[in-house]
Amino acid sequence: MRFDDAFVARTEPLVTRAFDAMEALERGAIANPDENRRVGHYWLRAPALAPDPETRREIEDALGAVKRFASDVVEHRIHTPQGQRVNAGMPFQSALLAGIGGSALGPMFVADALGEPDLAGVAARGLPGIPVHVLDNTDPEGFVRAIALLAERGLLDQTLVLVTSKSGGTPETRNAMIAVRRAMENVGLDFPPRAVAITQRGSQLDRTAEGERWLARFPMWDWVGGRTSVTSAVGLVPMALQGLDVDAFLAGAATCDEATRVRDPLRNPAMLLALTWLHATGGVGGRKAMVVLPYKDRLVLLSRYLQQLVMESLGKRLDLAGNRVDQGLTVYGNKGSTDQHAFVQQLRDGANDFFATFIRVLDATGGLRREELAGPAGDPEVEPGVTAGDYLHGLLLGTRAALHDNERESITITVPRVDERTVGALIALFERAVGFYASLVGVNAYHQPGVEAGKKAAAAVLALQTRVVAALDPTPRSAEAIAIAIGEADVETVLHLLEHLAANGRARREGEGPSARFARA
Amino acid sequence: MRFDDAFVARTEPLVTRAFDAMEALERGAIANPDENRRVGHYWLRAPALAPDPETRREIEDALGAVKRFASDVVEHRIHTPQGQRVNAGMPFQSALLAGIGGSALGPMFVADALGEPDLAGVAARGLPGIPVHVLDNTDPEGFVRAIALLAERGLLDQTLVLVTSKSGGTPETRNAMIAVRRAMENVGLDFPPRAVAITQRGSQLDRTAEGERWLARFPMWDWVGGRTSVTSAVGLVPMALQGLDVDAFLAGAATCDEATRVRDPLRNPAMLLALTWLHATGGVGGRKAMVVLPYKDRLVLLSRYLQQLVMESLGKRLDLAGNRVDQGLTVYGNKGSTDQHAFVQQLRDGANDFFATFIRVLDATGGLRREELAGPAGDPEVEPGVTAGDYLHGLLLGTRAALHDNERESITITVPRVDERTVGALIALFERAVGFYASLVGVNAYHQPGVEAGKKAAAAVLALQTRVVAALDPTPRSAEAIAIAIGEADVETVLHLLEHLAANGRARREGEGPSARFARA
Repeated sequence: MRFDDAFVARTEPLVTRAFDAMEALERGAIANPDENRRVGHYWLRAPALAPDPETRREIEDALGAVKRFASDVVEHRIHTPQGQRVNAGMPFQSALLAGIGGSALGPMFVADALGEPDLAGVAARGLPGIPVHVLDNTDPEGFVRAIALLAERGLLDQTLVLVTSKSGGTPETRNAMIAVRRAMENVGLDFPPRAVAITQRGSQLDRTAEGERWLARFPMWDWVGGRTSVTSAVGLVPMALQGLDVDAFLAGAATCDEATRVRDPLRNPAMLLALTWLHATGGVGGRKAMVVLPYKDRLVLLSRYLQQLVMESLGKRLDLAGNRVDQGLTVYGNKGSTDQHAFVQQLRDGANDFFATFIRVLDATGGLRREELAGPAGDPEVEPGVTAGDYLHGLLLGTRAALHDNERESITITVPRVDERTVGALIALFERAVGFYASLVGVNAYHQPGVEAGKKAAAAVLALQTRVVAALDPTPRSAEAIAIAIGEADVETVLHLLEHLAANGRARREGEGPSARFARA
Repeated sequence: MRFDDAFVARTEPLVTRAFDAMEALERGAIANPDENRRVGHYWLRAPALAPDPETRREIEDALGAVKRFASDVVEHRIHTPQGQRVNAGMPFQSALLAGIGGSALGPMFVADALGEPDLAGVAARGLPGIPVHVLDNTDPEGFVRAIALLAERGLLDQTLVLVTSKSGGTPETRNAMIAVRRAMENVGLDFPPRAVAITQRGSQLDRTAEGERWLARFPMWDWVGGRTSVTSAVGLVPMALQGLDVDAFLAGAATCDEATRVRDPLRNPAMLLALTWLHATGGVGGRKAMVVLPYKDRLVLLSRYLQQLVMESLGKRLDLAGNRVDQGLTVYGNKGSTDQHAFVQQLRDGANDFFATFIRVLDATGGLRREELAGPAGDPEVEPGVTAGDYLHGLLLGTRAALHDNERESITITVPRVDERTVGALIALFERAVGFYASLVGVNAYHQPGVEAGKKAAAAVLALQTRVVAALDPTPRSAEAIAIAIGEADVETVLHLLEHLAANGRARREGEGPSARFARA
């Protein structure tokens, strides 16, 4: 990145404002003014910094409860119910997490980076915990696929279901929960003794879990946003169940938090990152995209995790003063060197509308635990003195040089290896960089007003569908005629709903295209 | 998309040129002038259109061979070797595909959309074929993970290895092959009777496969580019092994090819798509990104597939006349409604630097085959009269409306269901749209000169690494001293290589940061 001392000097007032805002946030100020909320994800890994003893105790209690619960599951003190016989159950061998957005992306990224999500059913043969699969949508075929995967392996009765929704009312998550619950009940399995709720106290989900005596409940707080919830129970419960070291993860995040409180921008990695973004974009939304290229298969979901963190935080219409700014920073990418054979052609030769962020991992073969799992495969020599891992590292340096030679800017972040500590630190680094950048360009990083619009529009569509279904009669009519009959001006949406109903056996269709006519099924 | 008759009239000369170019391409003209190659992927699904009888026969022979091989594997006429006893082997239960870029993304997308890649090891219990996993990188930890997955399930000896490289010399693919081969040989398994090569006749890979008597070889041709190879053996071998209907897939592509040869742009879906892109971007690289939002879990890899197809084809520095244009069209996205809880906040409220492409699937529950697999789960009712699939469809319409209300443009493509025919048609639709768009903006869609630069730079890095290793001696020296000793000006790269070597036990390191010193391990 071609930024120099003059840029650092020029941005000094903005940087000071950003440091001040972050310090106020960490002290418990209302950092999310639109929703009148504090923003406390940094306290989750340093409870002593929480603004009051009550909050500190809640954080510490929740962490203790998560760790006790997970070790009870992994060591079989908590197990599946079996009739009236106490202690006669089977160990849990797998977990399904129903959640979406912030309740899914953190757990998915961590599971893929540090766990073995594909090893469900062989847990007993050496894994220290149980694998976690995520259901992050309301696609009935997606539900069937995930449930079939467990059913085919005979694992449905030994599956724990984590239902994660901060508000406790997210429809996609509720729908996934209903699908899993029915699949279990269809084969005579009780749902509540296999179910865990992670939600705010008093939410609909919390009340259901309490009333039905679910296996466990863990808290969320209104001062933790979904996209920064991976160091709360949302991320820690699945992590601990997989046998991952939640203390190391939190310590990695806390260490990075410490390092990024330094008020010298050139010695503060998060501020340095935010300043490089500011330099690349000029502070203007849509001018440059951030391409994330981790050279490590286990980090392939990092870009999707950061896509949410960055775009939901920074993609804002108005700044804090209420001016129209249409801010944003687009994030995409998968992994190197794979992407070298895909979109890197455009990065090097095409539109210069991006900057790249390389993630460089020094240790080629990962932690000992995984080597034990896989036998002594190590890093194979593929030419005299050259290993597969040398290629991976060499391709990173080569691609970086090729971009540089064509005046494409890039950032390289080096981590010693992919483990709990470095993944925690990477997450904390980007959390704070996003917070700083939002201050530099003057937007609220902690709300998401645009998400509501889609939800409301979808609710209106579903309400319209109910009216369309009620209006169907035995005589086929066009979409336009049905729209007129129910007093709906949006004929196109009525047609779309009728096509959907007909394709799923809930309306009868005659003819094709706009002239099709629809009747009661 | 707000384009009108005036835009269509204005672009008529460009459209005529694009139709002419596509017709010449299909007749066998040199459509890739830089590499002096014909471009023949459309012939793969309509061999009668091939420009000469020889080419036609090669395509038909290859297709017949793929289908025979796959049915022999699936029906156990081809099986694992077992000592000297003929017909005493075990059925193959799984396949590993080593390939990268065009040799991986098509097979991965198809496997996830239509197959059951996660069901390795339960194949015998109802799946019509064997699942295919893809190794698409040179990450030794990625190799270990994929191999461990098979080894833990006791499947390594019953795994077929597909090695796919058009040139036969792609280092990442060769490295993956070496890793799998060693893992097999380490436990006493012969590699050649489990190995299949998909490559051009006479390539290094082809000669190895022939010399070692691999189980099978299938051809690639210089007139099929990697990113359009999914309807060649590259895509068809893994597809057929999974028990998928390759004839329906090819017929879907052929039907779409037919429909997109119509010279009226308003009745040609591929030209209509290309014109909407042209309208959105003004023909300028980097002005707008294409966000791909399929509302269907099984299509989550479509955006990554299209990212390669579009960005590698369109991301070009020079136009066909040799003018500097820095073209490109950035593609990203995952799936709806999941992304609604991630980056859609920025789409609706933030920078208006994109257009969205919604993929709408009418059938909520997919094909019968999958329902049989999973039992009668269907589409669960989650509220009176409202199903999970209604939510998925309603969220698509709602998000589309919310974007529209904020003046964000979008395209909606509707398919009746996700099956071989529609996936083939979708791929063919975008292949031709990319070809048309390249003509509209005047670039060569069929070469990738920028990819070479990264490869050359990586080779230089690996050569430098060998010199650095040779220069290490028992006395620790700084990276700068070592660089001077070997006459290398690029001290930063020398330091990066030393850090990499030290982290992997191949150099000894003293101290941290730029002042670290390195010695022989």
